[in-house]
Amino acid sequence: MESLSAAERKQFEAFATGIADNARALSLPRFRRPVDVTLKGDMSPVTAVDRGVESMLRERIEMAWPMHGLLGEEYGATRVDAEFVWSIDPIDGTRSFISGWPLWGTLIALLHRGRPVLGVLDMPALDERWIGHKGAGTTMNGAPCRTSACDRLAAATIYTTTPDMFTPDEWARFDRTSREAYARRFGGDCYGYGMLASGHIDAVIEANLMPYDYLAIAPVVEAAGGVMTDWEGRPLGLESGARVVAAATPALHAALIESLARS
Amino acid sequence: MESLSAAERKQFEAFATGIADNARALSLPRFRRPVDVTLKGDMSPVTAVDRGVESMLRERIEMAWPMHGLLGEEYGATRVDAEFVWSIDPIDGTRSFISGWPLWGTLIALLHRGRPVLGVLDMPALDERWIGHKGAGTTMNGAPCRTSACDRLAAATIYTTTPDMFTPDEWARFDRTSREAYARRFGGDCYGYGMLASGHIDAVIEANLMPYDYLAIAPVVEAAGGVMTDWEGRPLGLESGARVVAAATPALHAALIESLARS
Repeated sequence: MESLSAAERKQFEAFATGIADNARALSLPRFRRPVDVTLKGDMSPVTAVDRGVESMLRERIEMAWPMHGLLGEEYGATRVDAEFVWSIDPIDGTRSFISGWPLWGTLIALLHRGRPVLGVLDMPALDERWIGHKGAGTTMNGAPCRTSACDRLAAATIYTTTPDMFTPDEWARFDRTSREAYARRFGGDCYGYGMLASGHIDAVIEANLMPYDYLAIAPVVEAAGGVMTDWEGRPLGLESGARVVAAATPALHAALIESLARS
Repeated sequence: MESLSAAERKQFEAFATGIADNARALSLPRFRRPVDVTLKGDMSPVTAVDRGVESMLRERIEMAWPMHGLLGEEYGATRVDAEFVWSIDPIDGTRSFISGWPLWGTLIALLHRGRPVLGVLDMPALDERWIGHKGAGTTMNGAPCRTSACDRLAAATIYTTTPDMFTPDEWARFDRTSREAYARRFGGDCYGYGMLASGHIDAVIEANLMPYDYLAIAPVVEAAGGVMTDWEGRPLGLESGARVVAAATPALHAALIESLARS
């Protein structure tokens, strides 16, 4: 797969950050305000803010790039076999959003031939934004950032959002692996991956994710020096499994994959 | 126990917020900077920031109130039988602090005859500060705040920092109770109690806490309309157990105590 040119990267980043700004303008004024919550078929909550932000993002993308594909949490997928496909999660961490917690984000990814090449991880309530370009570096609020040098499980600080995202078998594997680490902590949704890209923590291990949860995150983590795959070590794409391992270094990633595989 | 006068409340609040400002000035510039971490006897981490902030706070308190008692996380207790006793936790959530996570706080409490009457829950990295006066209301960044009206377990959103704070028996009780709730979420250290005082979530249930963890929080939660006790429903003081239940309303609190007591 050839990379995008510098001019293409610049053009797509300008567009993606522009619509991330638009998303903030819709979501942030409605944070910590009364909002109706409904439960979806999988019992996950959704609000009018999720739907309003996704509708706006879809409209902006379809106006600007009518030939591109589009995948979103609330309104499904179109043209996902196109050369370029956008993936959006209007509010990653809806449960945080409706709990007043500032750790919710907006995720925007661009895929080229099925693999994510640009990711925006935006945290409106914290005014923090990571942008990752496959092969061309990650920035946090405009400054280059880099994963830690941690290369051993025993030295690693590992985050995951909640034990409730794992099946019993997955929890047994996560539990054993994370107990071999220096520390494990819970909470954060997409924010843990930002902390990983900035070198503050060393790994995130999660399960039960959807493509729009991880497609924007993979370029942020990998262009900062990390490695992010599914639990079997396969690269992430539209068709990936729902379990991800993101690690600061190739050595730590390999140790985590090996540890998770032991039953 | 008689209450403090309005003049006493004003004087103590002015002092407590002044030293909370001093604590921010020491801690915030060192957040997300390299810091040496050492493990204490209980394997919990401590940094030079924890120690530096506590030393400053102790010095300020001892200069201003030489007859008052003093209790802190890093340097122990003096004169805890005095009429007034200060309790301080320089960095609540040291693991968050060293993970780059903004959810760490500084906790300052004033006890009168063994019970907390003033609490300051300060979140430097988020610029959010709750101040609670027993019997006289809670503010968040200067504006009055109030717990939610949630009075049923099935409608409640419950937070706790981590499953790792519970013994196996405590986890079994928390697990069953929290599964009967509308939602349960993990992470946050002291921040969950601020979200409870502001009405965004409905309860926090934790274990393995120390007095300096909960003494500042109890007035914040209770003066906002909530109830906070140990798991047996007893009021919190210097001699309390390490397990706390904080709830938005008396009815929800009673339901949580009843549920946790079932074995």
